[in-house]
Amino acid sequence: MRIALALEYDGRGHCGFQSQPDGCGVQDALERALAEIAQREVRAVPAGRTDAGVHATSQVVHADVPDDRPLTAWVRGVNAHLPPAVAVLWAHPVPDDFHARYAATARHYAYALLARPERPGLLNGRVGWYHRPLDVAAMRAGAALLTGHHDFSSFRAAECQAKSPMKTVHRFDVTTSGDLVRFDASADAFLHHMVRNVVGALVAVGAGKARPGWIGELLAVRDRTKGPPTFAPDGLYLVGVDYDARFGLPATRRDLVLPGA
Amino acid sequence: MRIALALEYDGRGHCGFQSQPDGCGVQDALERALAEIAQREVRAVPAGRTDAGVHATSQVVHADVPDDRPLTAWVRGVNAHLPPAVAVLWAHPVPDDFHARYAATARHYAYALLARPERPGLLNGRVGWYHRPLDVAAMRAGAALLTGHHDFSSFRAAECQAKSPMKTVHRFDVTTSGDLVRFDASADAFLHHMVRNVVGALVAVGAGKARPGWIGELLAVRDRTKGPPTFAPDGLYLVGVDYDARFGLPATRRDLVLPGA
Repeated sequence: MRIALALEYDGRGHCGFQSQPDGCGVQDALERALAEIAQREVRAVPAGRTDAGVHATSQVVHADVPDDRPLTAWVRGVNAHLPPAVAVLWAHPVPDDFHARYAATARHYAYALLARPERPGLLNGRVGWYHRPLDVAAMRAGAALLTGHHDFSSFRAAECQAKSPMKTVHRFDVTTSGDLVRFDASADAFLHHMVRNVVGALVAVGAGKARPGWIGELLAVRDRTKGPPTFAPDGLYLVGVDYDARFGLPATRRDLVLPGA
Repeated sequence: MRIALALEYDGRGHCGFQSQPDGCGVQDALERALAEIAQREVRAVPAGRTDAGVHATSQVVHADVPDDRPLTAWVRGVNAHLPPAVAVLWAHPVPDDFHARYAATARHYAYALLARPERPGLLNGRVGWYHRPLDVAAMRAGAALLTGHHDFSSFRAAECQAKSPMKTVHRFDVTTSGDLVRFDASADAFLHHMVRNVVGALVAVGAGKARPGWIGELLAVRDRTKGPPTFAPDGLYLVGVDYDARFGLPATRRDLVLPGA
Protein backbone atom coordinates (compact mmCIF):
# COMPACT_ATOMS: atom_id res chain seq x y z
CA MET A 1 0.00 0.00 0.00
CA ARG A 2 1.02 3.60 -0.50
CA ILE A 3 1.44 5.85 2.55
CA ALA A 4 2.18 9.52 3.00
CA LEU A 5 4.53 10.51 5.83
CA ALA A 6 5.22 13.91 7.37
CA LEU A 7 8.80 14.41 8.44
CA GLU A 8 10.72 17.05 10.39
CA TYR A 9 14.48 17.39 10.39
CA ASP A 10 17.46 19.51 11.27
CA GLY A 11 19.28 20.00 7.98
CA ARG A 12 22.71 20.05 9.60
CA GLY A 13 24.38 16.66 9.64
CA HIS A 14 22.82 15.67 6.34
CA CYS A 15 23.85 16.59 2.80
CA GLY A 16 20.34 17.61 1.79
CA PHE A 17 17.18 15.55 1.34
CA GLN A 18 18.14 13.74 -1.85
CA SER A 19 19.77 10.34 -1.71
CA GLN A 20 23.53 10.40 -2.28
CA PRO A 21 26.00 7.64 -3.18
CA ASP A 22 27.59 7.90 0.28
CA GLY A 23 24.20 7.70 2.03
CA CYS A 24 24.35 11.12 3.68
CA GLY A 25 20.92 12.35 2.47
CA VAL A 26 17.85 12.54 4.72
CA GLN A 27 16.23 10.29 2.09
CA ASP A 28 18.94 7.66 2.68
CA ALA A 29 18.34 7.72 6.43
CA LEU A 30 14.57 7.50 5.90
CA GLU A 31 14.80 4.67 3.36
CA ARG A 32 17.11 2.71 5.67
CA ALA A 33 14.64 3.14 8.55
CA LEU A 34 11.63 2.23 6.36
CA ALA A 35 13.49 -0.88 5.14
CA GLU A 36 14.04 -1.98 8.74
CA ILE A 37 10.28 -2.05 9.28
CA ALA A 38 9.32 -3.27 5.80
CA GLN A 39 12.08 -5.89 5.73
CA ARG A 40 12.62 -4.98 2.09
CA GLU A 41 13.84 -1.99 0.08
CA VAL A 42 11.51 1.03 0.17
CA ARG A 43 11.81 4.16 -1.96
CA ALA A 44 10.72 7.50 -0.43
CA VAL A 45 9.56 10.30 -2.77
CA PRO A 46 9.51 13.82 -1.24
CA ALA A 47 7.39 16.89 -1.99
CA GLY A 48 10.61 18.88 -2.35
CA ARG A 49 14.32 18.07 -2.29
CA THR A 50 15.64 20.48 0.31
CA ASP A 51 19.31 21.43 -0.04
CA ALA A 52 22.09 20.66 2.42
CA GLY A 53 21.63 22.66 5.63
CA VAL A 54 17.94 23.37 4.95
CA HIS A 55 15.51 22.24 7.65
CA ALA A 56 11.91 21.05 7.65
CA THR A 57 9.08 21.32 10.13
CA SER A 58 6.85 19.49 7.67
CA GLN A 59 8.27 17.68 4.66
CA VAL A 60 5.86 15.20 3.04
CA VAL A 61 6.97 11.99 1.34
CA HIS A 62 5.18 8.98 -0.09
CA ALA A 63 6.34 5.38 -0.06
CA ASP A 64 4.97 1.98 -1.06
CA VAL A 65 5.10 -0.34 1.91
CA PRO A 66 3.84 -3.80 2.94
CA ASP A 67 0.22 -3.51 4.03
CA ASP A 68 0.40 -5.93 6.97
CA ARG A 69 1.89 -3.47 9.49
CA PRO A 70 -0.15 -1.11 11.66
CA LEU A 71 0.23 2.58 10.75
CA THR A 72 2.05 3.24 14.05
CA ALA A 73 4.89 1.03 12.79
CA TRP A 74 5.58 3.68 10.15
CA VAL A 75 5.79 6.37 12.83
CA ARG A 76 7.17 4.98 16.09
CA GLY A 77 8.88 2.02 14.45
CA VAL A 78 10.57 4.15 11.83
CA ASN A 79 11.51 6.82 14.40
CA ALA A 80 13.35 4.16 16.39
CA HIS A 81 15.62 3.65 13.36
CA LEU A 82 16.04 7.28 12.28
CA PRO A 83 18.94 9.52 13.40
CA PRO A 84 18.04 11.85 16.33
CA ALA A 85 17.67 14.96 14.14
CA VAL A 86 14.99 13.37 11.90
CA ALA A 87 11.50 12.32 13.02
CA VAL A 88 8.31 11.08 11.36
CA LEU A 89 5.29 13.04 12.62
CA TRP A 90 2.50 10.93 11.12
CA ALA A 91 1.76 8.28 8.50
CA HIS A 92 -1.48 8.09 6.52
CA PRO A 93 -2.73 5.68 3.83
CA VAL A 94 -3.17 7.30 0.41
CA PRO A 95 -4.46 6.04 -2.96
CA ASP A 96 -1.89 4.68 -5.40
CA ASP A 97 -2.20 7.79 -7.56
CA PHE A 98 -1.02 10.05 -4.73
CA HIS A 99 2.41 11.51 -5.45
CA ALA A 100 4.11 13.67 -2.80
CA ARG A 101 5.67 15.91 -5.45
CA TYR A 102 3.19 16.00 -8.33
CA ALA A 103 0.05 16.12 -6.16
CA ALA A 104 1.34 19.07 -4.11
CA THR A 105 -0.67 22.21 -4.85
CA ALA A 106 1.46 24.64 -2.80
CA ARG A 107 4.68 24.80 -0.79
CA HIS A 108 5.41 26.96 2.24
CA TYR A 109 8.85 28.05 3.40
CA ALA A 110 10.04 30.23 6.28
CA TYR A 111 13.43 31.90 6.50
CA ALA A 112 14.75 33.07 9.88
CA LEU A 113 17.45 35.75 9.76
CA LEU A 114 19.36 37.14 12.74
CA ALA A 115 20.13 40.84 12.14
CA ARG A 116 22.70 41.98 14.71
CA PRO A 117 26.43 42.76 14.83
CA GLU A 118 27.40 39.54 16.65
CA ARG A 119 27.31 36.26 14.75
CA PRO A 120 24.84 33.56 15.92
CA GLY A 121 26.03 31.24 18.69
CA LEU A 122 23.05 29.47 20.24
CA LEU A 123 21.22 29.53 16.88
CA ASN A 124 24.29 28.63 14.83
CA GLY A 125 23.18 26.68 11.74
CA ARG A 126 19.52 27.46 12.33
CA VAL A 127 19.31 31.10 11.24
CA GLY A 128 20.83 33.22 8.51
CA TRP A 129 22.84 36.23 9.67
CA TYR A 130 23.24 39.83 8.62
CA HIS A 131 25.56 42.02 10.69
CA ARG A 132 23.55 45.23 10.54
CA PRO A 133 19.95 46.28 11.25
CA LEU A 134 17.63 46.00 8.25
CA ASP A 135 14.94 48.38 7.01
CA VAL A 136 11.93 46.10 7.30
CA ALA A 137 9.51 48.53 5.65
CA ALA A 138 11.74 48.66 2.57
CA MET A 139 12.03 44.85 2.48
CA ARG A 140 8.25 44.57 2.74
CA ALA A 141 7.78 46.99 -0.15
CA GLY A 142 10.22 44.96 -2.24
CA ALA A 143 8.66 41.62 -1.26
CA ALA A 144 5.19 42.87 -2.23
CA LEU A 145 6.37 43.01 -5.85
CA LEU A 146 6.93 39.23 -5.85
CA THR A 147 3.37 38.07 -5.30
CA GLY A 148 1.47 36.90 -8.36
CA HIS A 149 2.40 34.92 -11.48
CA HIS A 150 5.89 35.86 -12.65
CA ASP A 151 8.96 34.61 -14.47
CA PHE A 152 11.45 34.04 -11.61
CA SER A 153 14.51 33.39 -13.81
CA SER A 154 16.50 36.04 -11.94
CA PHE A 155 16.11 34.00 -8.74
CA ARG A 156 16.73 30.59 -10.29
CA ALA A 157 19.85 28.49 -9.71
CA ALA A 158 21.74 27.45 -12.86
CA GLU A 159 21.21 23.78 -12.01
CA CYS A 160 17.42 24.17 -11.58
CA GLN A 161 15.51 21.36 -13.32
CA ALA A 162 12.03 22.92 -13.30
CA LYS A 163 10.31 22.88 -16.71
CA SER A 164 9.24 26.52 -16.45
CA PRO A 165 10.50 29.59 -14.57
CA MET A 166 6.89 30.80 -14.26
CA LYS A 167 5.63 30.42 -10.69
CA THR A 168 2.76 31.85 -8.70
CA VAL A 169 3.82 33.37 -5.36
CA HIS A 170 0.89 33.60 -2.95
CA ARG A 171 2.75 35.47 -0.21
CA PHE A 172 6.22 36.73 0.66
CA ASP A 173 5.80 38.30 4.09
CA VAL A 174 8.48 39.97 6.22
CA THR A 175 8.01 40.22 10.00
CA THR A 176 10.33 40.86 12.94
CA SER A 177 10.66 39.71 16.53
CA GLY A 178 13.54 41.35 18.40
CA ASP A 179 16.63 41.07 16.20
CA LEU A 180 15.16 38.17 14.24
CA VAL A 181 13.67 38.85 10.80
CA ARG A 182 11.33 36.25 9.42
CA PHE A 183 10.32 35.70 5.80
CA ASP A 184 7.24 33.61 4.99
CA ALA A 185 6.90 32.47 1.40
CA SER A 186 4.12 30.44 -0.20
CA ALA A 187 3.88 29.47 -3.87
CA ASP A 188 2.52 26.77 -6.15
CA ALA A 189 6.15 25.67 -6.43
CA PHE A 190 9.61 27.20 -6.03
CA LEU A 191 12.59 27.13 -8.37
CA HIS A 192 15.91 25.81 -7.08
CA HIS A 193 17.42 28.32 -4.57
CA MET A 194 14.50 30.68 -5.22
CA VAL A 195 13.74 31.54 -1.58
CA ARG A 196 17.42 31.98 -0.68
CA ASN A 197 18.02 34.15 -3.77
CA VAL A 198 14.98 36.31 -2.99
CA VAL A 199 16.08 36.66 0.66
CA GLY A 200 19.51 37.77 -0.58
CA ALA A 201 17.89 40.44 -2.75
CA LEU A 202 15.58 41.60 0.04
CA VAL A 203 18.53 41.86 2.45
CA ALA A 204 20.27 44.10 -0.10
CA VAL A 205 17.12 46.27 -0.08
CA GLY A 206 16.92 46.21 3.73
CA ALA A 207 20.58 47.22 3.98
CA GLY A 208 19.95 50.22 1.73
CA LYS A 209 22.09 48.88 -1.12
CA ALA A 210 19.09 48.90 -3.46
CA ARG A 211 15.62 50.44 -3.64
CA PRO A 212 12.53 48.24 -3.15
CA GLY A 213 11.71 48.77 -6.83
CA TRP A 214 14.89 46.88 -7.73
CA ILE A 215 13.06 43.65 -6.89
CA GLY A 216 10.60 44.40 -9.71
CA GLU A 217 13.47 45.25 -12.04
CA LEU A 218 15.17 41.95 -11.20
CA LEU A 219 11.97 40.08 -12.04
CA ALA A 220 11.67 41.94 -15.33
CA VAL A 221 15.27 41.38 -16.45
CA ARG A 222 14.98 37.58 -16.07
CA ASP A 223 18.74 37.20 -15.61
CA ARG A 224 20.22 35.40 -12.62
CA THR A 225 23.58 37.14 -13.07
CA LYS A 226 21.91 40.46 -12.15
CA GLY A 227 20.82 39.15 -8.75
CA PRO A 228 22.74 39.00 -5.44
CA PRO A 229 24.51 35.86 -4.19
CA THR A 230 22.42 32.99 -2.81
CA PHE A 231 21.80 33.45 0.92
CA ALA A 232 22.90 30.81 3.45
CA PRO A 233 20.76 27.66 3.80
CA ASP A 234 20.95 27.84 7.62
CA GLY A 235 17.77 29.88 8.13
CA LEU A 236 15.55 28.08 5.61
CA TYR A 237 12.73 25.78 6.73
CA LEU A 238 10.22 23.86 4.63
CA VAL A 239 7.14 24.41 6.81
CA GLY A 240 4.38 22.81 4.78
CA VAL A 241 2.99 21.30 1.61
CA ASP A 242 -0.64 21.52 0.49
CA TYR A 243 -2.64 18.68 -1.07
CA ASP A 244 -6.20 18.30 -2.26
CA ALA A 245 -8.58 17.78 0.67
CA ARG A 246 -9.80 14.51 -0.94
CA PHE A 247 -6.64 12.80 0.35
CA GLY A 248 -7.78 13.52 3.91
CA LEU A 249 -4.21 13.97 5.18
CA PRO A 250 -3.46 15.10 8.75
CA ALA A 251 -1.90 18.58 9.06
CA THR A 252 0.70 19.02 6.32
CA ARG A 253 1.80 22.39 7.64
CA ARG A 254 3.63 23.09 10.88
CA ASP A 255 4.37 26.68 11.67
CA LEU A 256 7.87 27.76 12.57
CA VAL A 257 7.10 29.20 16.00
CA LEU A 258 9.41 31.81 17.45
CA PRO A 259 8.52 32.01 21.17
CA GLY A 260 9.42 35.37 22.60
CA ALA A 261 7.57 37.30 19.91
CA MET B 1 40.84 45.96 33.81
CA ARG B 2 37.81 43.86 34.67
CA ILE B 3 35.13 43.32 32.03
CA ALA B 4 31.76 41.64 32.07
CA LEU B 5 30.78 39.61 29.00
CA ALA B 6 27.41 38.23 27.96
CA LEU B 7 27.60 34.89 26.21
CA GLU B 8 25.14 32.65 24.36
CA TYR B 9 25.75 29.00 23.57
CA ASP B 10 24.29 25.72 22.42
CA GLY B 11 25.04 23.31 25.26
CA ARG B 12 25.48 20.35 22.95
CA GLY B 13 29.06 19.74 21.94
CA HIS B 14 30.36 20.97 25.28
CA CYS B 15 30.57 19.13 28.60
CA GLY B 16 28.96 21.97 30.56
CA PHE B 17 30.22 25.45 31.34
CA GLN B 18 32.89 24.55 33.87
CA SER B 19 36.47 24.03 32.78
CA GLN B 20 37.48 20.36 32.49
CA PRO B 21 40.88 18.68 32.32
CA ASP B 22 40.27 17.70 28.68
CA GLY B 23 39.21 21.24 27.74
CA CYS B 24 35.64 20.38 26.73
CA GLY B 25 33.91 23.06 28.86
CA VAL B 26 32.44 26.27 27.44
CA GLN B 27 34.77 28.00 29.92
CA ASP B 28 37.77 26.33 28.29
CA ALA B 29 36.72 27.51 24.83
CA LEU B 30 36.09 31.03 26.15
CA GLU B 31 39.39 31.22 28.04
CA ARG B 32 41.29 30.01 24.97
CA ALA B 33 39.62 32.70 22.84
CA LEU B 34 40.22 35.42 25.46
CA ALA B 35 43.88 34.37 25.68
CA GLU B 36 44.24 34.79 21.91
CA ILE B 37 43.22 38.44 22.23
CA ALA B 38 44.94 39.11 25.57
CA GLN B 39 48.11 37.27 24.57
CA ARG B 40 48.21 35.87 28.10
CA GLU B 41 46.16 33.52 30.26
CA VAL B 42 42.72 34.83 31.24
CA ARG B 43 40.32 33.28 33.73
CA ALA B 44 36.56 33.59 33.10
CA VAL B 45 34.17 33.48 36.09
CA PRO B 46 30.50 32.77 35.24
CA ALA B 47 27.26 33.74 36.95
CA GLY B 48 26.27 30.08 36.93
CA ARG B 49 27.94 26.83 35.89
CA THR B 50 25.42 25.31 33.52
CA ASP B 51 25.51 21.50 33.19
CA ALA B 52 26.38 19.50 30.09
CA GLY B 53 23.66 19.91 27.46
CA VAL B 54 22.23 23.07 29.07
CA HIS B 55 22.11 26.14 26.82
CA ALA B 56 22.32 29.87 27.43
CA THR B 57 20.80 32.88 25.71
CA SER B 58 22.52 35.11 28.27
CA GLN B 59 25.23 33.80 30.53
CA VAL B 60 27.32 36.52 32.19
CA VAL B 61 31.01 36.12 33.02
CA HIS B 62 33.72 38.44 34.27
CA ALA B 63 37.38 38.40 33.35
CA ASP B 64 40.47 40.52 34.04
CA VAL B 65 42.02 41.56 30.76
CA PRO B 66 44.72 43.94 29.47
CA ASP B 67 43.30 47.46 29.30
CA ASP B 68 44.94 48.50 26.01
CA ARG B 69 42.42 46.79 23.68
CA PRO B 70 39.20 48.41 22.47
CA LEU B 71 36.03 46.82 23.89
CA THR B 72 35.12 45.46 20.44
CA ALA B 73 38.19 43.21 20.60
CA TRP B 74 36.48 41.34 23.45
CA VAL B 75 33.37 40.80 21.29
CA ARG B 76 34.29 40.48 17.61
CA GLY B 77 37.87 39.45 18.28
CA VAL B 78 36.88 36.77 20.79
CA ASN B 79 34.02 35.57 18.55
CA ALA B 80 36.53 34.94 15.77
CA HIS B 81 38.26 32.45 18.09
CA LEU B 82 35.21 30.80 19.66
CA PRO B 83 33.57 27.62 18.31
CA PRO B 84 30.47 28.29 16.12
CA ALA B 85 27.97 27.36 18.83
CA VAL B 86 29.32 29.95 21.32
CA ALA B 87 29.18 33.73 20.85
CA VAL B 88 29.94 36.81 22.95
CA LEU B 89 27.05 39.31 22.75
CA TRP B 90 28.68 42.28 24.44
CA ALA B 91 31.59 43.34 26.67
CA HIS B 92 31.39 46.08 29.27
CA PRO B 93 33.96 47.52 31.72
CA VAL B 94 33.10 46.87 35.38
CA PRO B 95 34.72 47.89 38.66
CA ASP B 96 37.19 45.46 40.21
CA ASP B 97 34.67 44.50 42.89
CA PHE B 98 32.20 43.20 40.29
CA HIS B 99 31.84 39.42 40.47
CA ALA B 100 29.66 37.63 37.90
CA ARG B 101 28.53 35.09 40.48
CA TYR B 102 28.47 36.90 43.80
CA ALA B 103 27.08 40.18 42.46
CA ALA B 104 24.18 38.45 40.71
CA THR B 105 20.88 39.31 42.40
CA ALA B 106 18.66 36.97 40.37
CA ARG B 107 18.85 34.22 37.75
CA HIS B 108 16.32 33.41 35.05
CA TYR B 109 15.90 30.05 33.36
CA ALA B 110 13.52 28.78 30.69
CA TYR B 111 12.71 25.13 30.04
CA ALA B 112 11.20 24.12 26.69
CA LEU B 113 9.34 20.80 26.65
CA LEU B 114 7.82 19.13 23.60
CA ALA B 115 4.65 17.25 24.63
CA ARG B 116 3.62 14.92 21.79
CA PRO B 117 3.76 11.22 20.94
CA GLU B 118 6.61 11.56 18.42
CA ARG B 119 10.11 12.23 19.72
CA PRO B 120 11.78 15.55 18.71
CA GLY B 121 13.62 15.60 15.38
CA LEU B 122 14.19 19.19 14.27
CA LEU B 123 14.51 20.29 17.93
CA ASN B 124 16.57 17.29 19.02
CA GLY B 125 18.84 18.33 21.91
CA ARG B 126 17.09 21.67 22.32
CA VAL B 127 13.85 20.62 24.04
CA GLY B 128 12.84 18.13 26.69
CA TRP B 129 10.23 15.56 25.61
CA TYR B 130 7.16 13.98 27.14
CA HIS B 131 5.20 11.52 25.00
CA ARG B 132 1.72 12.47 26.14
CA PRO B 133 -0.31 15.69 26.43
CA LEU B 134 0.06 17.44 29.79
CA ASP B 135 -2.56 19.10 31.97
CA VAL B 136 -1.21 22.63 31.95
CA ALA B 137 -3.73 23.95 34.50
CA ALA B 138 -2.63 21.29 36.99
CA MET B 139 1.05 22.09 36.36
CA ARG B 140 0.33 25.78 36.91
CA ALA B 141 -1.42 25.04 40.19
CA GLY B 142 1.58 22.98 41.31
CA ALA B 143 4.11 25.56 40.15
CA ALA B 144 2.30 28.31 42.07
CA LEU B 145 3.26 26.54 45.31
CA LEU B 146 6.96 27.09 44.55
CA THR B 147 7.05 30.88 44.62
CA GLY B 148 8.36 32.48 47.78
CA HIS B 149 11.13 31.66 50.25
CA HIS B 150 11.38 27.89 50.74
CA ASP B 151 13.71 25.05 51.58
CA PHE B 152 14.23 23.36 48.19
CA SER B 153 16.12 20.29 49.51
CA SER B 154 13.67 17.97 47.72
CA PHE B 155 14.79 19.44 44.40
CA ARG B 156 18.51 19.57 45.16
CA ALA B 157 21.14 17.34 43.55
CA ALA B 158 23.29 15.32 45.97
CA GLU B 159 26.43 17.02 44.64
CA CYS B 160 25.03 20.55 45.15
CA GLN B 161 27.59 22.87 46.76
CA ALA B 162 25.26 25.70 47.79
CA LYS B 163 25.61 26.76 51.44
CA SER B 164 21.88 26.77 52.04
CA PRO B 165 18.86 25.03 50.48
CA MET B 166 16.78 28.15 51.20
CA LYS B 167 16.02 30.03 47.99
CA THR B 168 13.49 32.67 46.96
CA VAL B 169 11.59 31.80 43.78
CA HIS B 170 10.09 34.90 42.15
CA ARG B 171 8.18 33.08 39.43
CA PHE B 172 7.67 29.59 38.03
CA ASP B 173 5.32 30.12 35.09
CA VAL B 174 3.93 27.48 32.74
CA THR B 175 2.77 28.50 29.25
CA THR B 176 2.07 26.64 26.00
CA SER B 177 2.49 27.29 22.30
CA GLY B 178 1.21 24.43 20.13
CA ASP B 179 2.68 21.21 21.54
CA LEU B 180 5.50 23.08 23.27
CA VAL B 181 5.25 23.68 27.02
CA ARG B 182 7.47 26.40 28.39
CA PHE B 183 8.51 26.88 32.00
CA ASP B 184 9.92 30.26 33.10
CA ALA B 185 11.69 30.29 36.45
CA SER B 186 13.28 33.23 38.27
CA ALA B 187 14.94 33.10 41.68
CA ASP B 188 17.65 34.78 43.69
CA ALA B 189 19.66 31.63 42.99
CA PHE B 190 18.99 28.00 42.09
CA LEU B 191 20.31 24.81 43.64
CA HIS B 192 22.10 22.28 41.43
CA HIS B 193 19.55 20.54 39.13
CA MET B 194 16.73 22.50 40.81
CA VAL B 195 14.92 23.61 37.63
CA ARG B 196 15.22 20.16 36.03
CA ASN B 197 14.01 18.46 39.22
CA VAL B 198 11.04 20.82 39.51
CA VAL B 199 10.17 20.29 35.83
CA GLY B 200 10.26 16.54 36.45
CA ALA B 201 7.82 16.94 39.35
CA LEU B 202 5.53 19.26 37.37
CA VAL B 203 5.47 16.80 34.45
CA ALA B 204 4.36 14.09 36.89
CA VAL B 205 1.55 16.44 37.94
CA GLY B 206 0.71 17.30 34.32
CA ALA B 207 0.58 13.61 33.44
CA GLY B 208 -1.89 12.95 36.24
CA LYS B 209 0.53 10.83 38.27
CA ALA B 210 0.32 13.28 41.19
CA ARG B 211 -1.95 16.06 42.39
CA PRO B 212 -0.75 19.69 42.23
CA GLY B 213 -0.62 19.69 46.05
CA TRP B 214 2.13 17.07 45.88
CA ILE B 215 4.54 19.88 44.92
CA GLY B 216 3.85 21.50 48.30
CA GLU B 217 4.28 18.16 50.06
CA LEU B 218 7.62 17.64 48.31
CA LEU B 219 8.79 21.06 49.51
CA ALA B 220 7.69 20.25 53.06
CA VAL B 221 9.36 16.83 53.24
CA ARG B 222 12.80 18.24 52.26
CA ASP B 223 13.97 14.88 50.95
CA ARG B 224 15.36 14.51 47.43
CA THR B 225 14.65 10.77 47.42
CA LYS B 226 10.91 11.54 47.45
CA GLY B 227 11.10 13.51 44.21
CA PRO B 228 10.99 12.30 40.59
CA PRO B 229 14.10 11.74 38.45
CA THR B 230 15.97 14.79 37.13
CA PHE B 231 14.56 15.87 33.77
CA ALA B 232 16.76 16.00 30.65
CA PRO B 233 19.14 18.99 30.26
CA ASP B 234 18.16 19.41 26.58
CA GLY B 235 15.34 21.88 27.16
CA LEU B 236 17.05 24.07 29.76
CA TYR B 237 18.27 27.59 28.94
CA LEU B 238 19.92 30.17 31.19
CA VAL B 239 18.14 33.26 29.83
CA GLY B 240 19.40 35.99 32.12
CA VAL B 241 21.18 37.19 35.23
CA ASP B 242 20.33 40.38 37.15
CA TYR B 243 22.85 42.83 38.61
CA ASP B 244 22.57 46.09 40.48
CA ALA B 245 21.83 48.99 38.11
CA ARG B 246 24.95 50.80 39.39
CA PHE B 247 27.06 48.53 37.14
CA GLY B 248 25.29 50.00 34.10
CA LEU B 249 25.48 46.74 32.17
CA PRO B 250 23.79 46.27 28.77
CA ALA B 251 20.83 43.85 28.70
CA THR B 252 21.66 40.79 30.81
CA ARG B 253 18.48 39.01 29.83
CA ARG B 254 17.59 37.60 26.40
CA ASP B 255 14.34 35.83 25.78
CA LEU B 256 14.40 32.33 24.36
CA VAL B 257 13.75 32.09 20.62
CA LEU B 258 13.38 28.58 19.24
CA PRO B 259 13.15 28.42 15.45
CA GLY B 260 11.43 25.15 14.67
CA ALA B 261 9.25 24.88 17.75
